[in-house]
Amino acid sequence: MSKPDESNPENVTPPAAVAEGGDLENQTTEVGGGGVSNIVQRWQREDLLKRSSLALRCIGLVFSLLAFVIMVSNKHGDWREFDKYEEYKYVVAIAILSTLYTGFQAFRQVYELSTGREVVSRPYVGLIDFFGDQIVAYLLISAASSAVPLTNRMREGADNIFTDASASAISMAFFAFLSLGLSALISGYKLSHQTYI
Amino acid sequence: MSKPDESNPENVTPPAAVAEGGDLENQTTEVGGGGVSNIVQRWQREDLLKRSSLALRCIGLVFSLLAFVIMVSNKHGDWREFDKYEEYKYVVAIAILSTLYTGFQAFRQVYELSTGREVVSRPYVGLIDFFGDQIVAYLLISAASSAVPLTNRMREGADNIFTDASASAISMAFFAFLSLGLSALISGYKLSHQTYI
Repeated sequence: MSKPDESNPENVTPPAAVAEGGDLENQTTEVGGGGVSNIVQRWQREDLLKRSSLALRCIGLVFSLLAFVIMVSNKHGDWREFDKYEEYKYVVAIAILSTLYTGFQAFRQVYELSTGREVVSRPYVGLIDFFGDQIVAYLLISAASSAVPLTNRMREGADNIFTDASASAISMAFFAFLSLGLSALISGYKLSHQTYI
Repeated sequence: MSKPDESNPENVTPPAAVAEGGDLENQTTEVGGGGVSNIVQRWQREDLLKRSSLALRCIGLVFSLLAFVIMVSNKHGDWREFDKYEEYKYVVAIAILSTLYTGFQAFRQVYELSTGREVVSRPYVGLIDFFGDQIVAYLLISAASSAVPLTNRMREGADNIFTDASASAISMAFFAFLSLGLSALISGYKLSHQTYI
């Protein structure tokens, strides 16, 4: 075991503890030279990941909410009512689900950042994040994709406020998908570097 | 460090090497009591994961190929030709992509299992698996979702061999999505328990 910096007594402790064979398990740091600087690096990286996943969820929340509001307010009489088309109703349903999910996740993360307490215990959070983000992302891309052809076909005939509003709601759902898809990738990365210490 | 089975001298080597402090880093095993039995358990788990991800990709390959063949052969003259509808052409395009991707991955895994050599070097495989599976799964669910409403609407008017073949191609694409989505979850799990030894 190389100890590159013994002038600071704190640097000695982690490798010594490891050498005594107590907590060999679950170390995922890539210790290159010094132990402490790497742990600090890992903390910084984890902090950055937390912040970016919070940011992505907030973006996802805004876009899902926009998709929901734009689609629900898309009622202009006659055939130009969103609830006459099941594709648009699907978009609304998934936008509600995605709003609830991202809202809950963003609330949880903000609460944890501000108070330091955990709403969901540690090992489960990673899995819930990963599965949740991915499933909601699948649903969002599915809803957006199903509504695109209908809107395209309508726009061939007439281009009015109804088709424009539908198109923008679909775009919002698609942006929400993008941010949740990215968030799922980050959750996967977090899961892959999860420490159990 | 407890050595549960010292009768076989080969079993002693890995814990001894660890105790001497060489490669302490990057251990993700959850060693409860004995070191060796846990390493064997990890090998068995990794082997199971490899086999299940290979199986899922083969299933994905079969379903993508079926989706492609069924949709491409869906030409019955007049309006009953798949290439008159962009949704169906989208399904064909994604089915081709998914066939190529799953075919390559299945070939790579079979080659690695049979020869023991690596086609793609270790740290990248996990990432390619994870991103690739996920992106192809997104594309498949998007294609299937976009083609469903058109088929539903056609079936309200007439239920013939064209709509039946379309519906079955869409189902195949959906099953391919399911197997690739599961495979993406397994890739995420593999990534999260990746060892660099």
